[in-house]
Amino acid sequence: MKLLLTAFEPFGGEQINAALEAVNHVSVPSEIELSTLTIPTVFGAGAEMILSFARSFRPDAIIMIGQASGRPSISLERIAINLRDASMPDNVGNQPVDQPVVPSGPAAYFSTLPLKTMRAAVLSAGIPCDLSCSAGTFVCNDLMYSVLHLLAAASSPVLAGFIHVPCTPEQASLSNRKIPSMQTSDAVKGLEAAILSLCRFLDRTNSG
Amino acid sequence: MKLLLTAFEPFGGEQINAALEAVNHVSVPSEIELSTLTIPTVFGAGAEMILSFARSFRPDAIIMIGQASGRPSISLERIAINLRDASMPDNVGNQPVDQPVVPSGPAAYFSTLPLKTMRAAVLSAGIPCDLSCSAGTFVCNDLMYSVLHLLAAASSPVLAGFIHVPCTPEQASLSNRKIPSMQTSDAVKGLEAAILSLCRFLDRTNSG
Amino acid sequence: MKLLLTAFEPFGGEQINAALEAVNHVSVPSEIELSTLTIPTVFGAGAEMILSFARSFRPDAIIMIGQASGRPSISLERIAINLRDASMPDNVGNQPVDQPVVPSGPAAYFSTLPLKTMRAAVLSAGIPCDLSCSAGTFVCNDLMYSVLHLLAAASSPVLAGFIHVPCTPEQASLSNRKIPSMQTSDAVKGLEAAILSLCRFLDRTNSG
Amino acid sequence: MKLLLTAFEPFGGEQINAALEAVNHVSVPSEIELSTLTIPTVFGAGAEMILSFARSFRPDAIIMIGQASGRPSISLERIAINLRDASMPDNVGNQPVDQPVVPSGPAAYFSTLPLKTMRAAVLSAGIPCDLSCSAGTFVCNDLMYSVLHLLAAASSPVLAGFIHVPCTPEQASLSNRKIPSMQTSDAVKGLEAAILSLCRFLDRTNSG
Repeated sequence: MKLLLTAFEPFGGEQINAALEAVNHVSVPSEIELSTLTIPTVFGAGAEMILSFARSFRPDAIIMIGQASGRPSISLERIAINLRDASMPDNVGNQPVDQPVVPSGPAAYFSTLPLKTMRAAVLSAGIPCDLSCSAGTFVCNDLMYSVLHLLAAASSPVLAGFIHVPCTPEQASLSNRKIPSMQTSDAVKGLEAAILSLCRFLDRTNSG
Repeated sequence: MKLLLTAFEPFGGEQINAALEAVNHVSVPSEIELSTLTIPTVFGAGAEMILSFARSFRPDAIIMIGQASGRPSISLERIAINLRDASMPDNVGNQPVDQPVVPSGPAAYFSTLPLKTMRAAVLSAGIPCDLSCSAGTFVCNDLMYSVLHLLAAASSPVLAGFIHVPCTPEQASLSNRKIPSMQTSDAVKGLEAAILSLCRFLDRTNSG
Repeated sequence: MKLLLTAFEPFGGEQINAALEAVNHVSVPSEIELSTLTIPTVFGAGAEMILSFARSFRPDAIIMIGQASGRPSISLERIAINLRDASMPDNVGNQPVDQPVVPSGPAAYFSTLPLKTMRAAVLSAGIPCDLSCSAGTFVCNDLMYSVLHLLAAASSPVLAGFIHVPCTPEQASLSNRKIPSMQTSDAVKGLEAAILSLCRFLDRTNSG
Repeated sequence: MKLLLTAFEPFGGEQINAALEAVNHVSVPSEIELSTLTIPTVFGAGAEMILSFARSFRPDAIIMIGQASGRPSISLERIAINLRDASMPDNVGNQPVDQPVVPSGPAAYFSTLPLKTMRAAVLSAGIPCDLSCSAGTFVCNDLMYSVLHLLAAASSPVLAGFIHVPCTPEQASLSNRKIPSMQTSDAVKGLEAAILSLCRFLDRTNSG
């Protein structure tokens, strides 16, 4: 089993990105081959990078991870939409308003990960977890849509989806924020539980 | 330096109490003598127990710790009020409505802990922390008021106050809750930072 | 100019539906011909009813209105997704889990209403208003998706979209709810502002 | 029966004050004599003004009304505390930090209004209403504490308390706020219900 995890570079003037912190600490049993990729927090920059890497690495699934300030739980995103509408600039200053991700693309793509199975596994590990119907209209949604679009265009069997993690306590303790947070070790624990349940799902599917 | 920490038994049908979990893991440098006491989650049951213990232990300060479901941060309570108004029964079935804690007592007591100093220390440790102006009207406020009342009645120089900690991720991952949480190890880290800053404050005060 | 407004019957054991209350009080200048339709709160029940009515009424636009408990503002929905996942039964006891609205349908449809123009008009009228990227996975999303799907299948030029309104103060004052609310007269004022801005948009488009 | 209502001038750079708007529209049956007073939003400025007015007007009760941004309901304040701790300047630039309202005063005063009776009346009128255990540490709490302190010092039988109302929809519709709101007509309806229940309570008490 081969998995590709991605996370974004810090953005919005922050020193760290909670998702990147978590991804850097995920460890899995040796029968799972895990690669991780750090993506620039820039509209349109990540998908080709991921697909290019995937062409040589040949993962069974791609899990993109991002940080969602203000959410109290790990969020498994159900759908990515063909919309860029940024309320702040990305890391190179782009701030698209009401633009499509792919001008000729469909309105949306559903995650192809087994989300409810993964959620049950995360909750069983004692980590708060919810499904989400919106990955927003910033770079996270942009990447999720783009990757699912490229995979669909290639009729690829590779599963893919996006997971948001809360800010870290360190981020939440910065002045004047009153937001929920999740310790990196717990985000890691949740992601590992999600990954293991995904791998069991893939095993069953492949042998079925 | 001697400190007394207290926490409540689990209540409201829960298996654990986040504050008790945290208190059980707090550790401090050897020059601080720390005792901990577990208090029944029952109106009126804890204060005499604490004061009785304190008469032999002779702490410099008493920090009572409780669990506050729904809060995202460690909350340093500023004030306890002379009111019992329970929206659910305590652990022996008491559910007082609009009763005073102490019939002849004053309306409220302020915490005598150096709260802003402690908050700064908790935040510096990277743990979200806020001041709070209400410890509610359940057993937490009841205990805080009672202990401050008994100390005041005895003209005791012992400092005392109450700190609320969020639920743990395990508690928040139980079905249908969408509440913020804090890992026990982070609650512990925050409490330890608060305790150390309190001890430095006491040192300065005593030598001043 | 002809507009069709729809609202749902009360659901979830409630006596009223905030959206239905509002729709019943909307009034517009006489140059706009307005029809309203009340839809059963049942998966799959409303779209054909709306399209059938629309075939004779021939509206320029269809605005579906629903109630969103817990939201503080009028929400203009950007997108409907091909998913039914109900956390409670509809008014005839259906509670589909992870079912598509239309088995062969695309993942989603964007609202075809000029949402940012409408939002600006609602805000100018002094009524809180936001865009939303999720109409949920209950009957509201189901209806929005179905109507947009049927219109798309017919290559219809009719614009269509969905607007959520908050609960009324009466609903919010029922015991134990601590949710934001909006007076029906304000929901009406907001909807009227949205309708007028839509009609001006259609006028410009038609004459352009 | 004579009642004195007070409200603050707009503050924090706002054009209006939701409480002042409401108070200006309250009307009561002719057997209730109502006077209203507008108070500068300045620490320490209002209580003497109110007491001076009350010495000639001789009200049976004083209800102070203020605006609480972010709250979804009418809040009946249970208690005022002897603390000024401002996170923004008042209308003349005072921003006290950790100061007492009255240096020698007690820690707190409970409202002397029949709050649960009043809450039931407001809810019966279909207006969301809650009890609150904190009026904050800004000018609202300052006024409530000061008035209760002066009345207590004079052994006055006049009842007094503080009620917070949410922002208006107009205030909430200003850019970038996502806060609950309440229409002025509903705040008025709620306040009128509270006033009538208070007057019935006073009638029963006086004749009892």
